[in-house]
Amino acid sequence: MRFAKGHGTENDFLILPDPDAALELGPDLVAALCERRAGLGADGVLRVARAGALVRAGVLPGLPAGVAAGDWFMDYRNADGSVAEMCGNGVRVFAHHLVSRGLAAGPRVRVGTRAGLRPVRVLAADRTRAEVRVDMGRVGVLGVAAAHLNGARYAGIGVDVGNPHLACVLPGLTAEALAGLELAGAPEFPEAMFPAGANLEILTPLAGDVVSMRVVERGAGETRSCGTGTVAAAAAALADAGRVAGEVSVRVPGGVVRVGIGAGGAAELTGPSVILAEGEVDPAALG
Amino acid sequence: MRFAKGHGTENDFLILPDPDAALELGPDLVAALCERRAGLGADGVLRVARAGALVRAGVLPGLPAGVAAGDWFMDYRNADGSVAEMCGNGVRVFAHHLVSRGLAAGPRVRVGTRAGLRPVRVLAADRTRAEVRVDMGRVGVLGVAAAHLNGARYAGIGVDVGNPHLACVLPGLTAEALAGLELAGAPEFPEAMFPAGANLEILTPLAGDVVSMRVVERGAGETRSCGTGTVAAAAAALADAGRVAGEVSVRVPGGVVRVGIGAGGAAELTGPSVILAEGEVDPAALG
Repeated sequence: MRFAKGHGTENDFLILPDPDAALELGPDLVAALCERRAGLGADGVLRVARAGALVRAGVLPGLPAGVAAGDWFMDYRNADGSVAEMCGNGVRVFAHHLVSRGLAAGPRVRVGTRAGLRPVRVLAADRTRAEVRVDMGRVGVLGVAAAHLNGARYAGIGVDVGNPHLACVLPGLTAEALAGLELAGAPEFPEAMFPAGANLEILTPLAGDVVSMRVVERGAGETRSCGTGTVAAAAAALADAGRVAGEVSVRVPGGVVRVGIGAGGAAELTGPSVILAEGEVDPAALG
Repeated sequence: MRFAKGHGTENDFLILPDPDAALELGPDLVAALCERRAGLGADGVLRVARAGALVRAGVLPGLPAGVAAGDWFMDYRNADGSVAEMCGNGVRVFAHHLVSRGLAAGPRVRVGTRAGLRPVRVLAADRTRAEVRVDMGRVGVLGVAAAHLNGARYAGIGVDVGNPHLACVLPGLTAEALAGLELAGAPEFPEAMFPAGANLEILTPLAGDVVSMRVVERGAGETRSCGTGTVAAAAAALADAGRVAGEVSVRVPGGVVRVGIGAGGAAELTGPSVILAEGEVDPAALG
């Protein structure tokens, strides 16, 4: 089985080229591939297949909104083998793979996902590195709220980016102080605003057009990067500075991305992709 | 740069075939390769080179005891880029690579290490799986001692397997109870016996010829397997049962190995190796 390994701001993925959806990609195989020591190791798997082939193979019940049978489809799986609709970091690596391996011409690429069509622009790419812009849809502000974590109270703005976030700008917080915060554990959120929990972003106030952020992902704990979290953080930083629209560079532990938010709430996320290795893995050697 | 990925009881390694020692394998490159998200990810790197070539390249100051210039040499590096003398799990994967890729005929293979020549026997091998026996040298018993960890006191036998261990057989301990122990944190050892610290093994009493073990490695915390630790555990289990020599199957979180200890203390470790993937990695895409 051919694979490539890549990452977007250190959110890492195994890319499985499978245009005709011929692979039997069950949850056990995905989990075994993503296992860090007995497998190749990754946060998730990106199967690269034609949308129509996935429908014919019974992987998709039908074509999602806006997706054509001939479109490339990001069949995304979490490391535990479960299916996820979208992944803001993964879609950059996916589009990088398509353009750098000659599967799509670029710079504009149509990427099918379970959340619908994602228009992507590959701004620059060679085989190992790319810069990719992704349309993240519309950001919705839910209101103010606070979370509790390790005895500390974090007040911020609830933001809907397809999934729920509480993005907390802490007045006077420096990047150094942010790095020293204890963010282990599971935050508690007000149930009224977040009946199914949320992702928690802690960030510095806007300085020029830059913020530094850390993120505690729902069900995963702190991670080095969360695509939708950087969009929520940018929206909160702009609101904290009395602005609605603008461009913000968001520094996360895994790197830097750029978020643009338009007057109507339309968000674009621009960031790096790296594809560092390619090879063959033997499924019989896993597990 | 060509690589393979393998593991021995889930202690995982990147194998770099480099017969002429042509690679510039500095600590930064090793650390970047072993980084789990921005690199390929592993506990360590095994460079496969001829001993003589490593001397000519200035990597080795000279040939270690018993090693000939034409011998294959396991140039082992820890994930942080530092050099280590030996690795009981790594040497199995190294010998598996040599025999399965036609670099050595087997079943007996001479493997050079910084701790001297290690005679290895590859009992069975295909490209992905092997069973390998390693001569682990002589086990020395240091005496009885106790460590403290998380408020608990663990009494056991100090064992020297080239490196220091405290192997603690807990009377009445079941495999289920072992799995439930809290082993996070750094154990405290008596300085008189262990001036440079030690590895801590906690294990069940011998039942038939089987023990279950968990290990807290010096400087690394709990791991899924430690080759020398399984030898120390077997020696302690035999002593606890009033025996000096024998064969013990040691169950660790990463799998099962078999340890034989002769009447004179000579130890052999037999266990699995898996090589699951091969490919090319671009050093320019790391870090």
